[in-house]
Amino acid sequence: MSAPAPWVRDDNAALFTDLYQLTMLQAYWREGMNEVAVFDLFSRSLRERNYLLACGLDTVLHFLETLRFTDEALDYLATLDAFEDDFLDDLADYRFAGDVYAVPEGTPVFPDEPIVEVVAPIQQAQLVETFLLNQITYQTNLATKARRVVEAAQGRTIADFGMRRMHAADAPLRAARAGYIAGVHATSNVLAGHLFDIPVTGTMAHSYVEAHDREMDAFRAFAELYPETTLLVDTYDTLDGVRKVVDLAEEWGDAFRVAAIRLDSGDLADLARQSRQILDAAGLDDVQIFASGSLNEYRIAEMVEAGAPIDGFGVGTRLGTIADQPYLDTAYKLCGYAGEGRMKLSTDKSNLPGRKQLYRVMDGETASHDVIALHDEPHDGEPLLECVMRNGERTEAGRQRPLDVLRERTEQRVAQLPDRLRALDEAEEPYEVRLSEGVSSLLDATRDRLEQQMAVE
Amino acid sequence: MSAPAPWVRDDNAALFTDLYQLTMLQAYWREGMNEVAVFDLFSRSLRERNYLLACGLDTVLHFLETLRFTDEALDYLATLDAFEDDFLDDLADYRFAGDVYAVPEGTPVFPDEPIVEVVAPIQQAQLVETFLLNQITYQTNLATKARRVVEAAQGRTIADFGMRRMHAADAPLRAARAGYIAGVHATSNVLAGHLFDIPVTGTMAHSYVEAHDREMDAFRAFAELYPETTLLVDTYDTLDGVRKVVDLAEEWGDAFRVAAIRLDSGDLADLARQSRQILDAAGLDDVQIFASGSLNEYRIAEMVEAGAPIDGFGVGTRLGTIADQPYLDTAYKLCGYAGEGRMKLSTDKSNLPGRKQLYRVMDGETASHDVIALHDEPHDGEPLLECVMRNGERTEAGRQRPLDVLRERTEQRVAQLPDRLRALDEAEEPYEVRLSEGVSSLLDATRDRLEQQMAVE
Repeated sequence: MSAPAPWVRDDNAALFTDLYQLTMLQAYWREGMNEVAVFDLFSRSLRERNYLLACGLDTVLHFLETLRFTDEALDYLATLDAFEDDFLDDLADYRFAGDVYAVPEGTPVFPDEPIVEVVAPIQQAQLVETFLLNQITYQTNLATKARRVVEAAQGRTIADFGMRRMHAADAPLRAARAGYIAGVHATSNVLAGHLFDIPVTGTMAHSYVEAHDREMDAFRAFAELYPETTLLVDTYDTLDGVRKVVDLAEEWGDAFRVAAIRLDSGDLADLARQSRQILDAAGLDDVQIFASGSLNEYRIAEMVEAGAPIDGFGVGTRLGTIADQPYLDTAYKLCGYAGEGRMKLSTDKSNLPGRKQLYRVMDGETASHDVIALHDEPHDGEPLLECVMRNGERTEAGRQRPLDVLRERTEQRVAQLPDRLRALDEAEEPYEVRLSEGVSSLLDATRDRLEQQMAVE
Repeated sequence: MSAPAPWVRDDNAALFTDLYQLTMLQAYWREGMNEVAVFDLFSRSLRERNYLLACGLDTVLHFLETLRFTDEALDYLATLDAFEDDFLDDLADYRFAGDVYAVPEGTPVFPDEPIVEVVAPIQQAQLVETFLLNQITYQTNLATKARRVVEAAQGRTIADFGMRRMHAADAPLRAARAGYIAGVHATSNVLAGHLFDIPVTGTMAHSYVEAHDREMDAFRAFAELYPETTLLVDTYDTLDGVRKVVDLAEEWGDAFRVAAIRLDSGDLADLARQSRQILDAAGLDDVQIFASGSLNEYRIAEMVEAGAPIDGFGVGTRLGTIADQPYLDTAYKLCGYAGEGRMKLSTDKSNLPGRKQLYRVMDGETASHDVIALHDEPHDGEPLLECVMRNGERTEAGRQRPLDVLRERTEQRVAQLPDRLRALDEAEEPYEVRLSEGVSSLLDATRDRLEQQMAVE
């Protein structure tokens, strides 16, 4: 096969971009325009969530520090009949050497708040839009959804089982990492386990049971090899499957160490109650019950609130595809160029001009409101945007951290939120985000300037 | 940085699997179970579509023919404390050497119909489940959605602009390819253009206009460099932007070759009408109008039916995330083992036993119904499952084809569907899928056998 391997990799990710980023880049290059630009990456709305959990920064920083146009990439661009040879020669030396400000991964954020802010010569800052939006949008959306699932489970174990129906092969890697940061306990995704050092977990499939002539043969063989395994009991008849687990316990006596059973179909809460009775009656009260199958945060909350004796949940498709809100209204917008505020005036898609800082103002232990301020405008509250990259290199704040550190930080940050925001239902009173005087004034001034300019033209 | 590059690649895709595939594999290995298994990959439902457009086979065949456990992968597995050294030694020699049957990419399929059927020793056939489901599910779902968008546009140009908000980095590659097969004309995704030889396209962003002191400066500079470009007119005031395009045409005379304007916000149909009038009044009737912004098949159909003078559409997030149906009810189920039919009995998730062939029965030029038959059971109609891989190697039917061939075949296959299935709304009368006598008999016999076995146990 002569075709290149069909994957995104470090050495071709520079081409992971919309064509217009490259044609605009050539236009800036041709016009000699390369003043410093400020771009904010933010979400315009919450889409029925009460907050978003920022995620994806490490992937973005890895991209920015490895971004190169290889000969293969340049050869391809030359075939498009849109780029001049001199431009492509310069592209061979392209490096991202700008500054990046961002909220730490696992920070709750709200509409219009910068999740990432890029400050760089416009030729560098424009090109990276597509990749930054792609990763921050999905990872933030996934982390947000995962946190809802974790909250619904109220301390019970959550395992990510979603890779088989997520959107192609990169999403499951990002989801496993984002989910773990948000509080998910483990993933079935072996490659994510390897690449990101996340705990991996799994049980057995129906096909394993079916391939054996008898269900009991399958249970026996699997538990011999993996004594503390979880046995899947619903292939033929769920309660009958549970009784076979009891039979196995009687047969093996002290050698029986099976940790759990898994229910994957039917009325999970009801089957869990009946299974619990059967297990307890046989003295197997330390055998846990694990449930999976079409779960989301609402179904989990329902079962938890109903007191269903379920110790852990496997959550798949509806988490991994964020089935109820599969995208966020994210944007990467020019806020400043050559020292002046910039913005779009058109009706439904405006943005805030200027370089920014974001402050979280506390009322005791609880977040009271946020303030979007200018970057050099002092304000009460804790500043959330950190400089994570300077001149294209990660700062101390931007260096890669163990996921457990990010996970712990997420826990602390989420604990600061008012209870109404941590509930699954949309809060009647949304969290307040204020604009500072500096941002308000710059917004008015920029709008006035642009409208005057248009009147003159 | 010591961490491995965080991407799926040919050389680590063997780990792109749920952990239980590997623990089950070791169990089969330990038990000496390796008879031939038959697994069907199918969708249980249409989820409000009238048909699904099968896609993703080439990605799957590439995976199967390159599947290897590298030393890096084996070293990682050894850390999990679940695998024996002898097993890992054998895994180093793992190759997929089975047979694969599949419907060609771009074939409309219906519930329970095999999209892919794997016939291989169970140790080979089980392991590949996760990757096969992951790619076939997303690509089939995306191709189906893309075809709906293409149908809605009734011949007008469709460009895929979705990569920035799709689910991480692999989805946009697969979507660009699947969309092109389904009839989308071009993508903004440069890497997909390179890897899959798909036409790439693009216009300009609002930020480009905003970075210039005047909108007219931006138009002039861009059109000088790209004479046949599309100018984005809605950054400040849409109709004002259109008038500037007219001014530019007057200024440049014969040198003016701008091909189109793009509208990206507001009431697109209404703005298109007013823009058309302004352009036509200036004699610019060959300047086309291109629309984008929150589009899906329904919004496009509405505008087309209302006669809005729009020549092409850029479709992004709602197509790329398949926002209304972000997943399919796909499954990869054991249908046979060691020559016997196998199935799951549990309530809501049964499957059809046996090796299969799928027949499409025509009534003149139009598909009348399909029949799911046993693989060696002759039947009227055209057989749709082809042998695409034998002993782990692609057959002639499985070799990689130019996308234009697949695109043309899709067109022919979709043209065979009854009109009610090509409509956007759910057909009141769904397409009929019959079970052959052979499948029906085997279904009954397998169920009886399993129920008797359970009674005996």
